[in-house]
Amino acid sequence: MDNFPVVGQRIPKRDAPQKVTGSAIYIQDLKIPGMLYGKILYSKYPHARILAIDTSRAEQLPGVKAVITGYNIPPFKFGFFKDNPPLKSGKVLSMRDEVAAVAATSPEIAEEALEMIQVEYEELPGIFDPIQAMQEGAPILHEGLKSNVLKLPWRLICGDVDTAKKESHCIVEDTFSTQWVTHCCLGTSGCVASFDINNNLTMYSNTQIPYLAQRDYIDALNVFGIKNRKVRVIQCIIGGGFGSKLDTYAYEYIAILLALKTRKPVKVLFTREEEFIATSPRQSTITKISHGCTKEGKLLFREMEMILDNGAYTSWGATTPSVMMMPISSLYKVPNVKYIAKCVYTNNTYSQAMRGYGNPQATFAIESSLDQLAEKMGMDSYELRLINANEPGEITPQNFKVTSCGMKECIEEVAKRIDWKGKRGKDKGRGVGMASLIHVGGGARVYKSDGCGTIIKIDDYGKVDVFTGASEIGQGSETVIAQIVAEVLGVNVEDVNVINNDTDVCPWDVGVHASRTTFVAGNSALGAAKKIKEQILEIASKSIGEAPEHLDIQKGLIFSTKDKEKNTPLGKVLRNAHYSTGGKMLMAEYFYDPANENFDKDFKGNLSVSYAYGTHGVEVEVDRDTGRVTILKYIAAHDVGRAINPMMLEGQIYGGGLMGIGYALSENMNFREGRLMNPNFLDYKMLTAKDVPPVEPVIVETNDKDGPFGAKGIGEPGLVPTAPAIANAIYDAVGIRIKDLPITPEKILKALKEKEKRGQSGEEGK
Amino acid sequence: MDNFPVVGQRIPKRDAPQKVTGSAIYIQDLKIPGMLYGKILYSKYPHARILAIDTSRAEQLPGVKAVITGYNIPPFKFGFFKDNPPLKSGKVLSMRDEVAAVAATSPEIAEEALEMIQVEYEELPGIFDPIQAMQEGAPILHEGLKSNVLKLPWRLICGDVDTAKKESHCIVEDTFSTQWVTHCCLGTSGCVASFDINNNLTMYSNTQIPYLAQRDYIDALNVFGIKNRKVRVIQCIIGGGFGSKLDTYAYEYIAILLALKTRKPVKVLFTREEEFIATSPRQSTITKISHGCTKEGKLLFREMEMILDNGAYTSWGATTPSVMMMPISSLYKVPNVKYIAKCVYTNNTYSQAMRGYGNPQATFAIESSLDQLAEKMGMDSYELRLINANEPGEITPQNFKVTSCGMKECIEEVAKRIDWKGKRGKDKGRGVGMASLIHVGGGARVYKSDGCGTIIKIDDYGKVDVFTGASEIGQGSETVIAQIVAEVLGVNVEDVNVINNDTDVCPWDVGVHASRTTFVAGNSALGAAKKIKEQILEIASKSIGEAPEHLDIQKGLIFSTKDKEKNTPLGKVLRNAHYSTGGKMLMAEYFYDPANENFDKDFKGNLSVSYAYGTHGVEVEVDRDTGRVTILKYIAAHDVGRAINPMMLEGQIYGGGLMGIGYALSENMNFREGRLMNPNFLDYKMLTAKDVPPVEPVIVETNDKDGPFGAKGIGEPGLVPTAPAIANAIYDAVGIRIKDLPITPEKILKALKEKEKRGQSGEEGK
Repeated sequence: MDNFPVVGQRIPKRDAPQKVTGSAIYIQDLKIPGMLYGKILYSKYPHARILAIDTSRAEQLPGVKAVITGYNIPPFKFGFFKDNPPLKSGKVLSMRDEVAAVAATSPEIAEEALEMIQVEYEELPGIFDPIQAMQEGAPILHEGLKSNVLKLPWRLICGDVDTAKKESHCIVEDTFSTQWVTHCCLGTSGCVASFDINNNLTMYSNTQIPYLAQRDYIDALNVFGIKNRKVRVIQCIIGGGFGSKLDTYAYEYIAILLALKTRKPVKVLFTREEEFIATSPRQSTITKISHGCTKEGKLLFREMEMILDNGAYTSWGATTPSVMMMPISSLYKVPNVKYIAKCVYTNNTYSQAMRGYGNPQATFAIESSLDQLAEKMGMDSYELRLINANEPGEITPQNFKVTSCGMKECIEEVAKRIDWKGKRGKDKGRGVGMASLIHVGGGARVYKSDGCGTIIKIDDYGKVDVFTGASEIGQGSETVIAQIVAEVLGVNVEDVNVINNDTDVCPWDVGVHASRTTFVAGNSALGAAKKIKEQILEIASKSIGEAPEHLDIQKGLIFSTKDKEKNTPLGKVLRNAHYSTGGKMLMAEYFYDPANENFDKDFKGNLSVSYAYGTHGVEVEVDRDTGRVTILKYIAAHDVGRAINPMMLEGQIYGGGLMGIGYALSENMNFREGRLMNPNFLDYKMLTAKDVPPVEPVIVETNDKDGPFGAKGIGEPGLVPTAPAIANAIYDAVGIRIKDLPITPEKILKALKEKEKRGQSGEEGK
Repeated sequence: MDNFPVVGQRIPKRDAPQKVTGSAIYIQDLKIPGMLYGKILYSKYPHARILAIDTSRAEQLPGVKAVITGYNIPPFKFGFFKDNPPLKSGKVLSMRDEVAAVAATSPEIAEEALEMIQVEYEELPGIFDPIQAMQEGAPILHEGLKSNVLKLPWRLICGDVDTAKKESHCIVEDTFSTQWVTHCCLGTSGCVASFDINNNLTMYSNTQIPYLAQRDYIDALNVFGIKNRKVRVIQCIIGGGFGSKLDTYAYEYIAILLALKTRKPVKVLFTREEEFIATSPRQSTITKISHGCTKEGKLLFREMEMILDNGAYTSWGATTPSVMMMPISSLYKVPNVKYIAKCVYTNNTYSQAMRGYGNPQATFAIESSLDQLAEKMGMDSYELRLINANEPGEITPQNFKVTSCGMKECIEEVAKRIDWKGKRGKDKGRGVGMASLIHVGGGARVYKSDGCGTIIKIDDYGKVDVFTGASEIGQGSETVIAQIVAEVLGVNVEDVNVINNDTDVCPWDVGVHASRTTFVAGNSALGAAKKIKEQILEIASKSIGEAPEHLDIQKGLIFSTKDKEKNTPLGKVLRNAHYSTGGKMLMAEYFYDPANENFDKDFKGNLSVSYAYGTHGVEVEVDRDTGRVTILKYIAAHDVGRAINPMMLEGQIYGGGLMGIGYALSENMNFREGRLMNPNFLDYKMLTAKDVPPVEPVIVETNDKDGPFGAKGIGEPGLVPTAPAIANAIYDAVGIRIKDLPITPEKILKALKEKEKRGQSGEEGK
C-alpha cells in the first residue's frame, strides 16, 4: 500500500491536551445563567403499585421551583416500544423507575426536596429471571400484553440445519450464559434543557445520536404542547459513550419537563450511583448452541437459541439479536444457520446498546463451542479455525458480501506471536486460547439512513474548517477526519479544524454506533475534501499552466506531477480566487450514505459495505489454589483495512481488549431481586491501570476498496472475542470450561473441585 | 412588482424577543471559567513624553495577575497606517493613549491597581486644530514624518472645473464645518481573549468585521511569537455598531497580550466614560465648496476642498474621503467635479468609520450650498433639485453606473407630503427644507473582496439552517436573510434558522459596512437557497411526474405550476431523498461577490452594483427668543429597490433620521485641548424617546435588477441628508444659515442677532 504524509501517521488525539489539562468542558462543567438543578426520585421497590404521592412538603422548601410526578405531566412514553413514561404513575416495574423529580436552585436543595416526597406503595411480587418470566401463569408486567416475551421476530434461518445435522460427522451442544455489565463511562450522564422565549429547545447533552435524539425531543415536545419548534442539540465533551448514549432517556425528558415548567434552564446530572443504577447496561443472555462439522472439520451448521433479559422497558437494546445474527451467520464459513432469540420483560433494569451490541454475547457462545468441537474432533482448534476462516469474495448465508478480509492473517499472526504450537496444551496451569470475530466495518444499515454529511470551507491561507455529522465521543473521530481532509488537501493536519458538536451547524449523521464513524464519516469528509480539491486544482490549472489532472497538493504547495518545478503555494491560489471581482472562497458539501442494505423481513441483506475481522490470542496462568487467572500475554490482531492513525487504532484495540477482559473475568452487575448490590467502582470490578495486562495490538491491513484510504471501522471489535479467547485458554491451562461469565476465581475453584471429583471417579477430563 | 408570501412582509425582528426580555447574552454578560478582568490606564496629557512608569506597587496588589506597559510588550503597531501601538512608550499623542494595562481577578482590583501605577510625564505642547497643525513650523506628532498631513492621495478630478466656472451663469461659494460625534452604542465595547493550550486564540468580540479582525489578530499573534495558530472570532450579541466596530483597537490587543501573559481568558469591557473617550468617532471637517450652474439651473461644476481632523492615529476613518467622493461626484448630475481632501494629525482622539462614512459631512456642504445656489438663481430649490436629479441609466463623472434610481420620485414625494409649495417661505418662524442623498446600495468594493458566503442545509422536515458570513449587529440581517431563504424555499420564515456569529462556522464576509448586507449577504443567501431548491425540484420531479421547471414550492408544498393538484409535501420529498441506500440530505454553498469595482488610481470606477437614493423634507419652527428648533414634520423618502421587510426598513430610516437630527441639532463631542468635556449621556445630547420628532418614512420601490428580490441597501442613508434638510428649513423659517454643525440654539440666537443688525443697517437678508 501507498505511504501518505498524513494518513497512516501516529498523530496524537487532538482532544487529548484539553482533557489531560482539565480545560475540557464536560456537561459536569456547564453552567448557564439562571440554571436550576433537577434531581430524580426513584422507586423504592422493583415492582409495586403507587397508591399516593405527596409532594406538598417538597414544594414548600425554599429554593424548590418545581416538583413533577407521573400524575401532573402529559401522557408520554419513549423507547423502542414506547413503553416507558419519563415519570411513572400507576405501577413501578423496576428499582430505577422514576417516580418524581424536583428542580431547585442547588443540587443540595433538590436532593433535600426528594427526601420530603412521600410515596405510598403497595409492593407486588417481582420477576427477575427471564425463564421464570416466560412461564405459564407468570404475572404480566405491562398491562395489555399477553406475555412477557417481547413481540420481536428474532428468527434467522439460512439453509437447512436439520439436514446438516444428519450429515454432520461430529456435533457439540452446550449452553452459555453472560452477565449484566455496564459501560462505566467516567463522565456520568447528564443534560441541560433550555428553552428560549419562543419555546425553542436547546439541549446540551452527552448523546451519541444528536440527530435521532433531536427527533425524539421534537416528538416529546409535540406531546407536551410545544408544536413546530426548533430543537438544537449541542454535545458537550463526552466522557465515554460505549453505546450508553445511543438512545434518549427519562432523565432527559424530565429535564425538558422541568425546564418547561420553570421557564429556566434545568440541568440533570447523574451521580456515580445513579450512573450504575439508572443507565441501561448490556443485557444478560442464556444461549443454547450447537455446531456440527464434516470429517475434515468443515462447519456444516450452527444452531442457537437465546434468551435475553430485556428488563422492565424496551430500548434499542432489545434489537441486539439483529446484530448477533452477524457472527451467528457469518463468523467462519457455515452454510446452515438457525437462530431464535427471545427478549423477556423482567423487573430488572432495562437493557441498552453497549460496545459490540450483542456480538460479545454471541461470540462467547460460538467461539467457546468451536473449541469444544475441535476437541471432540481431536483437532487443534487453530486448524479448525483456519479451515473455516472467512475469505475475500465470500457471500455469507445471511447475504453479507465479504470484500476485504484478513481473518486468516489474523489467526496466523496470533498463533505465531503467542507461540501456539509451542504452548498449546503443554504446560499445565498455563494455557493458550484464541477466538475470532466478525463485525461491521463499513457502516451498518440499522436505520433508514446510514449517512453522514460534511461541509468544508477553506480560508485565504489554507486553513480548513470541517463540519461533520460525526460525534467525537473520545473515539478519535476528530483526529481521523482531520487526517483524511489534510491528506486530500495537502495541508498540515493542524490546519484542519473539525467541528462536530451542534445540530444547528453540523450536517446530519445517524449517530456513533456500529464502528461506523471512520468509514462513513471518513468517506463523507473524503468526498467533501475531494470536491474542494477539484475546485482548487481547476483554479490553479490556469496559473500553473498544467491540466488539473496533472496537479496535486502537498505541504501547502500545488505542483505539476509531471514537472515539480511548476508549482505555486496553495494560499496564493486561494487568495487569487477570492480577491477579485466575482471572486470566490471555496466551500463544498458532501453527503455519503454507504451502499449497504437494511435487512429484509428474513433478516438477510448486506448490512455493511465491509466487514472487520480479528483474532485474539491469550496465554493465561490459572492459580489452582485461588482460582485466580493471570493473563501472561494478549495478542489482538485486527483486520482494519488501513490504519488511518495506528496510534489511535492501537488505543481502540487496547481499550476494547481491556473492556473485554473485564467482561470475561471480573465485571458483573450484581442484581438481587432487581436491586443492584454493587453500584460503585469498589464493588463493580472494572479493570484499572493496576490490572492492565500487556495487550499487544497487531494491525493487519487489507486496504478495503470502499473505505476511506482503505480503512474499516474498529471501534467495537476489540472486546468481541476476548471472553471466549480467555475461556479457551483457561480450558487449555486447567481443563475446565467456564460457560457463565464472568469467569471469577470462585467459579474456577468450584469447577476445579468438580473436575477433581470427576477425575477421581474416572469421568470426563482433559 | 410581484407580491410574495414572505418577502415584503412586516415580520418582527427575530432578535427582538431576547433583547426586550433581557435574555440576550451581550459581551457584558459573558463569563468564561477562570476569566480575568483587564483595565487600561490612559494618558494624563494630550501630548507628553513618558519619562518613567512604575508598576511595582500595582503588581503586588493581591488579585493582580499581570501588568503590562509599552515597555514590556513586543513592538507592534496596528491601524490603517500601522502607526498605533496598543500600549504607548516614548510619547503619548492624545488623552486616550493607552499607557498601561492590568489583568486581575475582579474589575475592582484591576481598577485599584491602575491607581497604583505611577507614570512620570513631561508635558508637551499640543495641537488640536488641523489648520494649525498644517502650518509651517508646527510640531510634528509622529516621529519620522515631515508633515502632520497624512500622505493620502485624496484627489478627484472629473471634467474641467476651471472651464466650467467660466461658463457658469451663477456661482456660489461658502465654507461649512462639522463637529466630532460619536456612535453612542448602548452596548459598550469589549472583548474576551482566550487561548487554548495549543495557543489557538478565541476572541469573543463585538466586531463588525469578524474576518478582517481575524486577520488583524493573526498578524498581531505573529509579532507576539505565536505563529501559524488558529484564531476564532465569536461575536456576542452586539449592542450597536454604526461603524465603531469596523476596525480592531488597542483594547483588543491588550486583552490578547494579557491573556497570553496570564494564560487565562481576559475580558476588557469599557465603561460608559471609556466608550466616550476611547472609541473612535466621526471626525470633524471643514469644507470649502463652490457650485455653478447654467441659466436654466443645470449644474456645471462642483468644487470642494476639505480638511479632516484625523486625530492622533490613523484608522480606517482616514479613508472616509474616498466615500465622500460619491456624493461629491454623483449627487445630482454634475459634469465637472474637483475634490481635494487633507487628513491632518492632531492631539485629539482619532477618527473612525461612522454610519455614512463621510457622506453626512459632504452632503451637509453640498445640499446647503445647493440651496444657496437656488436662492442666488431665484429658483425654488425644489425645482433646482428636480432639474439636476439623478436618473436611471446615467453614468456619473466618477464612472458610477446608475441602474435603478428613484431620486425624482423621492423629491416629488417629499414635496407633496410636506406641502412644499404651500409652506415654502410663507410662514415666518416656520419653514421647510429638503436635501437628497446618494449612497452605495449594492455593496461597495473598498476591500479586495466585497463577497459573502452562505451555506444552507435542510432537514427531513423542511427546517433550514443558514450559515451566513453576514453579522447581525442589530440592523436585522438575520430576519432579512431568513425571509429571502424562506421565500425561495417556500417554507415558513420561522423554519429558517440563521447562524451568523462565528468565524469557524460561518463563511467569509468582508464585514458590516457600506449598507451592503441586505444586498450582498441577501444575494449570497438567495444563491444558496436557489441551489437547494433546484435539488429539491429535481428530486420531486420524479415523484410528481412534472418537469422541474414547472414545479414550485409554497407553504411547504411542492406543486406543479401547470396543475396545482399535482403536489407533494416538501418534507416527504426530503425524507424520501434521505431514507434510502445512497440517500442524501440536501446542502448547498454559495459565494457571492458583486460585480462592482475597486477605484482606479484616479478614484474612478463603479464602486457599487447599485446606488440608493433618498430625499428628506422637514418642516421646522424656530423660536426667535430661545433659538430652539422644533421639528414639526419630517418626511424621509428612500429609494430602497424593494422593501424585503417594510417594518424593519422603516426602523432603519427612523433610526437613521433620529441619528441625523442629533447630528444636526445637538450632538457634539466637546473637546477642550484634546480633553473631552462631556463623556456622558447627560452632557452629550443624544436624542432620547422624549425628543423624538414624527419621522415619516416613505418607501420608494424601484425593483433593482441586481438586488435580492430587487432590494438595495438602506443601513446608512437615513442620516445622510438630515442636517442640510434641517439647515435649509431653518433658513426658510428665519432667514439664517448655520454652516457649522450642530445647529444649537446659541448659534441660532447669535445668527438672528447678527441678521437683525445687518437688517437694521440695510444689508443682505432674506
